[in-house]
Amino acid sequence: MKRVAMYAGSFDPPTNGHVDMVQRALELFDELLVAVVFNPDKAGSFLFSADERVGLLQQVFAGAGDRVRVESFHGLLVSYAESRGARVIVRGLRAVSDYEYELQMAQMNRFLDNGIETVFLMASARHSFISSRLVKEVAALGGEVRALVPPLVLEALYRKLGRSQG
Amino acid sequence: MKRVAMYAGSFDPPTNGHVDMVQRALELFDELLVAVVFNPDKAGSFLFSADERVGLLQQVFAGAGDRVRVESFHGLLVSYAESRGARVIVRGLRAVSDYEYELQMAQMNRFLDNGIETVFLMASARHSFISSRLVKEVAALGGEVRALVPPLVLEALYRKLGRSQG
Amino acid sequence: MKRVAMYAGSFDPPTNGHVDMVQRALELFDELLVAVVFNPDKAGSFLFSADERVGLLQQVFAGAGDRVRVESFHGLLVSYAESRGARVIVRGLRAVSDYEYELQMAQMNRFLDNGIETVFLMASARHSFISSRLVKEVAALGGEVRALVPPLVLEALYRKLGRSQG
Amino acid sequence: MKRVAMYAGSFDPPTNGHVDMVQRALELFDELLVAVVFNPDKAGSFLFSADERVGLLQQVFAGAGDRVRVESFHGLLVSYAESRGARVIVRGLRAVSDYEYELQMAQMNRFLDNGIETVFLMASARHSFISSRLVKEVAALGGEVRALVPPLVLEALYRKLGRSQG
Amino acid sequence: MKRVAMYAGSFDPPTNGHVDMVQRALELFDELLVAVVFNPDKAGSFLFSADERVGLLQQVFAGAGDRVRVESFHGLLVSYAESRGARVIVRGLRAVSDYEYELQMAQMNRFLDNGIETVFLMASARHSFISSRLVKEVAALGGEVRALVPPLVLEALYRKLGRSQG
Amino acid sequence: MKRVAMYAGSFDPPTNGHVDMVQRALELFDELLVAVVFNPDKAGSFLFSADERVGLLQQVFAGAGDRVRVESFHGLLVSYAESRGARVIVRGLRAVSDYEYELQMAQMNRFLDNGIETVFLMASARHSFISSRLVKEVAALGGEVRALVPPLVLEALYRKLGRSQG
Repeated sequence: MKRVAMYAGSFDPPTNGHVDMVQRALELFDELLVAVVFNPDKAGSFLFSADERVGLLQQVFAGAGDRVRVESFHGLLVSYAESRGARVIVRGLRAVSDYEYELQMAQMNRFLDNGIETVFLMASARHSFISSRLVKEVAALGGEVRALVPPLVLEALYRKLGRSQG
Repeated sequence: MKRVAMYAGSFDPPTNGHVDMVQRALELFDELLVAVVFNPDKAGSFLFSADERVGLLQQVFAGAGDRVRVESFHGLLVSYAESRGARVIVRGLRAVSDYEYELQMAQMNRFLDNGIETVFLMASARHSFISSRLVKEVAALGGEVRALVPPLVLEALYRKLGRSQG
Repeated sequence: MKRVAMYAGSFDPPTNGHVDMVQRALELFDELLVAVVFNPDKAGSFLFSADERVGLLQQVFAGAGDRVRVESFHGLLVSYAESRGARVIVRGLRAVSDYEYELQMAQMNRFLDNGIETVFLMASARHSFISSRLVKEVAALGGEVRALVPPLVLEALYRKLGRSQG
Repeated sequence: MKRVAMYAGSFDPPTNGHVDMVQRALELFDELLVAVVFNPDKAGSFLFSADERVGLLQQVFAGAGDRVRVESFHGLLVSYAESRGARVIVRGLRAVSDYEYELQMAQMNRFLDNGIETVFLMASARHSFISSRLVKEVAALGGEVRALVPPLVLEALYRKLGRSQG
Repeated sequence: MKRVAMYAGSFDPPTNGHVDMVQRALELFDELLVAVVFNPDKAGSFLFSADERVGLLQQVFAGAGDRVRVESFHGLLVSYAESRGARVIVRGLRAVSDYEYELQMAQMNRFLDNGIETVFLMASARHSFISSRLVKEVAALGGEVRALVPPLVLEALYRKLGRSQG
Repeated sequence: MKRVAMYAGSFDPPTNGHVDMVQRALELFDELLVAVVFNPDKAGSFLFSADERVGLLQQVFAGAGDRVRVESFHGLLVSYAESRGARVIVRGLRAVSDYEYELQMAQMNRFLDNGIETVFLMASARHSFISSRLVKEVAALGGEVRALVPPLVLEALYRKLGRSQG
């Protein structure tokens, strides 16, 4: 039986931390569904549209073939996982504050559907300070983020911010 | 002498976690003032109006008679407690992040009025993942929250969200 | 009905942080049972014997009359509380690491006897760095702890450590 | 290809929290190696010998057939995992203090062998206050731990502590 | 060689906690650049304009002569520090949640410019509950904040809030 | 005026994390006193004697000339710092649990001698999982720690553990 896991997030934009998580998750599961959270009410608070984020992720993970599917979704995480045949939700953990929020969400998701398990991977030490929010802030202020995101994300980020590539 | 305590919060909406806190606080104090924080500047950020929340809480605790009073208030917590004869503020603790904010508030309130004590109860393990915010989010996305809020709150929540009751 | 609470600990030795807790607990409850944990297997790991600690606490709280009783006990905390008519356990919280241990103990005690409530008070900012262990260490190395413990505890500490009083 | 994971610990004694972890891990992996840490230098600090703990776990998981193997080991966790064909280490997370220790261990293990992944599951809310240490302490003081450990562990615990079964 | 450090923040408004940090930093470094973060996009979310905050800080630290310079800046923190000859960033730590954010920022800043060191001082126990945000909230609700901010900040705060000075 | 700082610890053994701290501290201060804590009562709990640890550190920092002095000391940290002309104590921070202990110690040291400041540096991401205790454990179990300690410490560690060098 194929083991399908889901890795959901905003990915605004995808970072090397996300890429590391996906690669490590592929060692554990047969297929990974990368799910871009789409919230029509908060569309304005993202730098990249859901479609752009799906596109970036598809290019980043093109090499993984059909072991990685990228989709956007709106709704309840566990229902979406259920509907796509994913029995496992993969989450990355960096800091204690992540941990608490994640614990609450994992317990809530377990309450909503106890057939779906949440599995956590610890961020690698060298990715522990990378977040999409911080990458955007630093890039917007002219900082060098080349080592923090995949090349094609860097390009998209610079284009979006109207910056020429360092 | 009657011991009066105050339990303040947004209660947007009241959850079974809040109900548990009130019931446990009633074992410790003679009277409990349940105070709904009312902020005219942020009225738009609540799902239920202050009046609706007062109404829901009054129905939920109707069985406790005059040992539970429900009111809304605007202003400084310690001044309001003082004015209503409450010398104790009751707070629930769930997570470490709660703890830090609560520690800061308790020390500030002690600084503002050292005659008022803040007393903390730990959330029961089975309520530890319930928050009003999460209940609203899950309910809005179609999730089942029947076991997380009192029946009459569930009804009000469904009515407010334009959902028919599961 | 009299409200009796229990405040248990090692008190090796009692500090001003403990005194502050007792005084604040007396504002909340009619009677406080200060319970010195006595563990025959670990007698060697304490600086003061259980009897000495009971004696020190009795002197420190002599002014509170029969509102404060000091006893030593061995056994299960909740059973002891039950047997002495205390329905409430009072605990002080200082740091996040305290918090987690206390949360675990409170949930365990609730599991063992759900008629007994654990109530937490936050340490005052100015007592937040005081612990019995640190007071002993600093005093043993010749540091000045006069402002951290009651005068008669200071005297006993110096006597025990073979130090002349600064 | 069979996915083999390792779940290592002291299990002194096994609790319902451990049982829950094993059952959930079996939903994720084909085979689970339950590894009892054996430290000849610290033999005296355990209530049950390594052999007794292996025996208890074997009985507890007898129903899982050959999907669960129980062994004791001494040495480096990642080397042992490697030698047994386990590419995944499963860990349970309860509290923030767990989290930090686990993060450090996961990063060290990744440094020692980056082909082995550590995967974390959050303890269920109702098991979050159970630890082997606390179960032993409570049982030794006469507390009721029937709901915290499997029946045959309870029996062994009572026998070991010279207690008759409540 | 003169050692120049930078202490950056919103200072909306400056508190006694900030003053304590500056005074302690002056014991460690020859010159301190107090940098008011200026964000044109979020101008509306501050109570005091960047110019007003610079003015308040200049008055508060007038006594320190040219050892304290106050400026506002917009852009990347490390680039600004570099451009002003500051090789050290000073930060205050209060709570665990501060700590995590600060750790992330320090690691990011080190990544962006590893010639700039971030140095942390722990808030004094008596300032640990003071934050600009809380001071504003309490003052707006009529609470007494006289002991939490310098006198000239109190005056400016009351003027801004349309309050007469208690 | 020369700025002298003290960096105290057990250093049993010194790790690359310690070396990184010393190098970064030398960018901030003119002279660094590396102080090996010597506790005659706990001599048996260390792998290396205080003299051996002083020797290792002297070799490791030989290149820094007289800007780094290595000494062992017994007694109160702040008194020792005072006696050696150090007005600053440097500490490394890795995890939240470090943070809390460090906060308590910094506040206690400030209470004991408010003329001495404690300054914290965050561990680099790539050193965040290294501790002397973990290095010893891993090395004793045959793990590869070559990248975690300076070469001459590795040699001493292998000699002490009776291991031939990998």
